[in-house]
Amino acid sequence: MTSSNAPRRTGAVKQITSHSNPLIKEIKGLLTQRKHRTQAGLFVAEGLKLATDALEAGWDVHYLALGPDMRDNPVAQKAAATAKARGALILEVNTAILSAMTRKDNPQMVVGVYEQRISDLRNLDPHAQTVLVALDRVRDPGNLGTIIRTVDAVGASGVVLVGDCTDPFAVETVRATMGSLFHVPLYKATRQDLKDLIVRWPGTVAATHLKGSVDYRTPDYTEPTLLVMGNEQQGLEQDLADACKTLIRIPQVGQADSLNLAVATGISLYEIRRKHLAL
Amino acid sequence: MTSSNAPRRTGAVKQITSHSNPLIKEIKGLLTQRKHRTQAGLFVAEGLKLATDALEAGWDVHYLALGPDMRDNPVAQKAAATAKARGALILEVNTAILSAMTRKDNPQMVVGVYEQRISDLRNLDPHAQTVLVALDRVRDPGNLGTIIRTVDAVGASGVVLVGDCTDPFAVETVRATMGSLFHVPLYKATRQDLKDLIVRWPGTVAATHLKGSVDYRTPDYTEPTLLVMGNEQQGLEQDLADACKTLIRIPQVGQADSLNLAVATGISLYEIRRKHLAL
Repeated sequence: MTSSNAPRRTGAVKQITSHSNPLIKEIKGLLTQRKHRTQAGLFVAEGLKLATDALEAGWDVHYLALGPDMRDNPVAQKAAATAKARGALILEVNTAILSAMTRKDNPQMVVGVYEQRISDLRNLDPHAQTVLVALDRVRDPGNLGTIIRTVDAVGASGVVLVGDCTDPFAVETVRATMGSLFHVPLYKATRQDLKDLIVRWPGTVAATHLKGSVDYRTPDYTEPTLLVMGNEQQGLEQDLADACKTLIRIPQVGQADSLNLAVATGISLYEIRRKHLAL
Repeated sequence: MTSSNAPRRTGAVKQITSHSNPLIKEIKGLLTQRKHRTQAGLFVAEGLKLATDALEAGWDVHYLALGPDMRDNPVAQKAAATAKARGALILEVNTAILSAMTRKDNPQMVVGVYEQRISDLRNLDPHAQTVLVALDRVRDPGNLGTIIRTVDAVGASGVVLVGDCTDPFAVETVRATMGSLFHVPLYKATRQDLKDLIVRWPGTVAATHLKGSVDYRTPDYTEPTLLVMGNEQQGLEQDLADACKTLIRIPQVGQADSLNLAVATGISLYEIRRKHLAL
């Protein structure tokens, strides 16, 4: 688990009216720059729903910024009280500051800063999984967020980010997860880590591949199933494709490779669920 | 069919070196403003692949702007010759102008301006359809583009835009279609138009709905099938839900309604294909 390098929190309430307050700059930096997020081990999620999801799922809240509309909102006040009790710093700010912080004309009235959670794949127990999705160099934040959302909806076990992936804690990704980020375990891995996992995987290992010869409806997807998906432009790295036991193909009319990555993952996941999990 | 109000084309080649050239401003306007696109009946698609797709599918090209890298590219030169023979104005521009035109640091080396094609739903013959997807107030350009791409991949007949939808000719939508925009017929409709179509529809009419009681795998999806999908936030308008014969549900763990619209549409379309079309 990545641990946060950020300073200790205080469990206090602070009113901020100045745009030049260093906390506002810090949050803006976390929102806009991956380097800042990685160094601090923190990320930003907008909206009251996501704050509630995060707190319910037991995530560590670092800061919770509340706009003027939220002072009388019982759900927001409850979230703030819970966050404060767990040591978060509550920031009471005006709409202009929320706008500046999130670089939006119509900002959400709640902005939370949370500690990142991502585990090393080498610590994963394959026997504790139902369906695990591994993404080889996923590049698009919307795709990654949407896949995390689908993994949550289908009750799969987690998402593995293999190699140089887009940041799961980028604000566009977090937004696309619709809160599922707080419910889906994430793992990071090198290609070698994934190949090692494939060797010791006890169930089906299936990868979608342009040269896949097995219709995606054919495998029995023995539990646990490891579903491996390739990069948006280039598909799966050849050595990973070679390591996977079953290369599946989702039939398409016309030109091949014309499904969006998140759609192809969704179709595959629902096919896997149909085979061995009672929904 | 919407016809273009744009001035007649010339089938000529023009070199442009000035950022203030009115053609450059016109293209930038088409790229950034829906109002301009609608008034002119034109839209912008970036990239050589999309230009080739458009020409092969017989779409009318208004302008084709080529960057310096494209002067020696045989595919680009062939596309330019075809476009010119059909009356397009070929613009030879430098990279800085392509950047300004598309507002990108690393612009594509081919930028095309095409005539919009969208038909009135009232002219559609239901008996000529296999599977038709109707989208009630789709708001996200990425979702719409991805759905058009999936409709193409699955060999469905077209996409109906019901009510106040995002612009199918916005550059983000066009980008997300990956060229499928040029292969998938689009229709525009009011809610009443769609309700009228449902009344005279000869096959299955299925809508995904939070209160759907029919598992999406259950219907026989008699051809032609009309699949109706609701808005990202609010789902389907109640009167449309009432008009649909079958309300289907894609089972989900945890909170309901946690699938992305494009993913839910993809899962539904592949289920429909499985039932009655040989892929």
